[in-house]
Amino acid sequence: MRFSDLARQLQSLDASSLAQQPDLDPEITAIAPIETAPARTLSYIDGGKFAKLVTTTAASALILPKDSALQQAASDRHIAWIATANPRLLFAQAIALFYQPFQPAPGIHPSAVIDSSAKLGNNPSIGAHVVIQADCIVGDDVRIHPNVVLYPGVSVGDRTVLHANCTLHERTQIGADCVIHSGAVIGSEGFGFVPTREGWLKMEQSGRTVLEDGVEIGCNSAVDRPAVGETRIHRNTKLDNLVQIGHGCTIGEACAIAAQTGIAGGSSLGDRVIIGGQVGISNQVHVGDYTQVAGQSMIHSDVPPQSIVMGSPAIPATEFRRIAALWKRLPDMQRTLRQLQKHLGG
Amino acid sequence: MRFSDLARQLQSLDASSLAQQPDLDPEITAIAPIETAPARTLSYIDGGKFAKLVTTTAASALILPKDSALQQAASDRHIAWIATANPRLLFAQAIALFYQPFQPAPGIHPSAVIDSSAKLGNNPSIGAHVVIQADCIVGDDVRIHPNVVLYPGVSVGDRTVLHANCTLHERTQIGADCVIHSGAVIGSEGFGFVPTREGWLKMEQSGRTVLEDGVEIGCNSAVDRPAVGETRIHRNTKLDNLVQIGHGCTIGEACAIAAQTGIAGGSSLGDRVIIGGQVGISNQVHVGDYTQVAGQSMIHSDVPPQSIVMGSPAIPATEFRRIAALWKRLPDMQRTLRQLQKHLGG
Amino acid sequence: MRFSDLARQLQSLDASSLAQQPDLDPEITAIAPIETAPARTLSYIDGGKFAKLVTTTAASALILPKDSALQQAASDRHIAWIATANPRLLFAQAIALFYQPFQPAPGIHPSAVIDSSAKLGNNPSIGAHVVIQADCIVGDDVRIHPNVVLYPGVSVGDRTVLHANCTLHERTQIGADCVIHSGAVIGSEGFGFVPTREGWLKMEQSGRTVLEDGVEIGCNSAVDRPAVGETRIHRNTKLDNLVQIGHGCTIGEACAIAAQTGIAGGSSLGDRVIIGGQVGISNQVHVGDYTQVAGQSMIHSDVPPQSIVMGSPAIPATEFRRIAALWKRLPDMQRTLRQLQKHLGG
Repeated sequence: MRFSDLARQLQSLDASSLAQQPDLDPEITAIAPIETAPARTLSYIDGGKFAKLVTTTAASALILPKDSALQQAASDRHIAWIATANPRLLFAQAIALFYQPFQPAPGIHPSAVIDSSAKLGNNPSIGAHVVIQADCIVGDDVRIHPNVVLYPGVSVGDRTVLHANCTLHERTQIGADCVIHSGAVIGSEGFGFVPTREGWLKMEQSGRTVLEDGVEIGCNSAVDRPAVGETRIHRNTKLDNLVQIGHGCTIGEACAIAAQTGIAGGSSLGDRVIIGGQVGISNQVHVGDYTQVAGQSMIHSDVPPQSIVMGSPAIPATEFRRIAALWKRLPDMQRTLRQLQKHLGG
Repeated sequence: MRFSDLARQLQSLDASSLAQQPDLDPEITAIAPIETAPARTLSYIDGGKFAKLVTTTAASALILPKDSALQQAASDRHIAWIATANPRLLFAQAIALFYQPFQPAPGIHPSAVIDSSAKLGNNPSIGAHVVIQADCIVGDDVRIHPNVVLYPGVSVGDRTVLHANCTLHERTQIGADCVIHSGAVIGSEGFGFVPTREGWLKMEQSGRTVLEDGVEIGCNSAVDRPAVGETRIHRNTKLDNLVQIGHGCTIGEACAIAAQTGIAGGSSLGDRVIIGGQVGISNQVHVGDYTQVAGQSMIHSDVPPQSIVMGSPAIPATEFRRIAALWKRLPDMQRTLRQLQKHLGG
Repeated sequence: MRFSDLARQLQSLDASSLAQQPDLDPEITAIAPIETAPARTLSYIDGGKFAKLVTTTAASALILPKDSALQQAASDRHIAWIATANPRLLFAQAIALFYQPFQPAPGIHPSAVIDSSAKLGNNPSIGAHVVIQADCIVGDDVRIHPNVVLYPGVSVGDRTVLHANCTLHERTQIGADCVIHSGAVIGSEGFGFVPTREGWLKMEQSGRTVLEDGVEIGCNSAVDRPAVGETRIHRNTKLDNLVQIGHGCTIGEACAIAAQTGIAGGSSLGDRVIIGGQVGISNQVHVGDYTQVAGQSMIHSDVPPQSIVMGSPAIPATEFRRIAALWKRLPDMQRTLRQLQKHLGG
């Protein structure tokens, strides 16, 4: 489409954005990353190390921050642009104008094995080799990709997407508008064993896992169910790939948990907590609302709301950075100590 | 059931336990976690931070430690209780009285694809879309959930459970009474490549993986097979989710390995080793019997039996804690050093 | 086969190797690891802690380094041997003489579901319950094990192997001679969300993942696709199990990435980079050619080529080791500081 058309659509989403185009209104045929964008594409710059690419990119149009120097640089190169307070958000909206994600066709593949007691909603899409066991309830417009397995008593809310090869264990409840990515396992048995003289005695995991509306679980992640009660992920929380959520955890609303993080049994996050990759959280601890945890941190005890923590064990980030800087100067400190000792005839 | 009936059953399992009930023998209909237990449920308190919940819980009955203050507090609130030396063990046994885990019905689903050379034991349960390839041997009362794949030459012992979407590679031997959770991959090729001028040359992985009786492997974990010889996990050892066991490892009896831990090729654990989450163990090292390793530790060299270690690299836990405390005081030490230098005209 | 025959075959692969056999030319029937090798097997010693096993092994033949003491020790025990500059390489080649890896038979299993628009090459092997969706292109001699799912528009190059239960998402391109292990997920949606007042807005992931020729991806690993552009792994790079590659990453040629490492969105590795297990790499950083990263390191910023780094955050390994040694001496330093203070009447 012409840039002028595109700009009109995006400005209808963000009334405070500004658009400017060169004399010739460029045809925009695709969206591209700034490092490799060819002509006739729209790309975006959100400041930082990518800002300098405005002087070299072949993109015909850019989404920019409200930064007059960047805007001028784009104009000087005859690049059309739209400036906005939130370039990444507008870029996400622009992608949605160009890209229609793949959706499997409605219908039930004849190779799917669906128990007669299961209840399916309107307009289901159920792929090849899917297995839906007794007493499952599947909402309207749910899309279940091939080779997914639902154990008995699972419920899946409207419009939820279950990607290929994921597994939902008995009694799991998935809300509406969720996405479960390939290989994820939801509601499996928590790691509950009691040490005895003879070895480990299994504690049966009689609870269930509940995902509220709008939750997304990454590829090959696991969300266990507890011995009693629930593991619960509140609405709009997003988990990346290979994340482990232990039995009986409670994860608040609109959290984001990056890849390979593990949260041990019985711990809880407040709302809008942001966790980096490969973080470990011990069992039975609470992380407060709005807290941010840096990648590879290890949390052993409760963290107050609105903290920013890092390290293993995790401490406030400002303190961590100061101490880590001194840690790198240990050889200097050691040298100074020796000089002082010598000076004093030590 | 009535509390008095429940207490009788539990006391038959633990003769040294004490039971006390209020005037009215309460009806117990379910088991619940202490934080959210409603009336007519049995819950448990194992001391620690949960002890104070005895003053607020709505549970009608509790399993308690042998702690007279806790017992008195429960009695004061007319809560029935059973006191035992091991509340968590008795609670596990109580769950088993109320909860019957899901077991798939016996039979072979018509969509399963089973090679004619495979041998099946008595009373098999083989789910939809299972694939069992040439020369596999499946014991009695084995339950194979949907979409499981057995490569050729796999053997599975009596009563073992294979959960949906797990994969057992060629020549893998699984003992009796094992549980392989969803998405786990057993006996896959070890990561064996030899660097050459042209790149990486693949070392064929001709060995096999052996799990002895009573082993449990968590969701999406991987236990590789080696180039030659065996990867072996001895009896009664339990692995949590997303654990990686490299080619040629030997894991002792009755170990417990928490989620996201990785053990590199050729390493070994003794018996009853307990490993926290996200631990890394380098290749070709040995961890002795009864050793405990804290979460996120990294082990580079042999660890003697009965050690307690933590840190990356791991050192004895008492030493780690002392040093970590001083690490946090580096700014103080730096300040003192400067004062001393100043004092000495440095 | 007789050792003399075996030696002849191996010497044809490595002309600079030396062979010596005892008076009796032993029959070699299998390959075995040095720790447990029985009679009539070939094993290998590559120096290090295994060297002393030359005095106890029951192996009838050994591949040895060019080390005259080891060779003499083997001869003294009447063990046949071949000495080479690269024992591990020659051992890999010896395994290939004895071991024929399992390959599924050619043919298309009747339970496979293949869209009529998909194009299959010559001599395909497509297992039970495989799903190949619209517009996929599968090359010659490709082997697809059971329960694999290809989303629409996937292409798979000649001779590539897809192991059971792996998933290739829409538009993924896999080169020739690749191996995708069980449970791996390629081309799934990157973790792209924009924070808004209402929660997380999903950024559609319109890009694709490309694996070039000779790439190997371990079990249950995930290689996401980006919002725009590509995630690309260059030729001959090998990933171990449970590795996470974020959206938009570029991984160079002939890299090796050990288990449970995670690389966040938009980062890149040069060629022949070697990454240990459980390493974390932040988003938008570059690691230069030939760099080596120790296990459990965390990389926050660009690393120059040919570096050797370790630590969280990662620094040059020599510096890390010096500082880590001083870190362990913090109690000593603290004591010295106190003595100096006392001495000065502090």
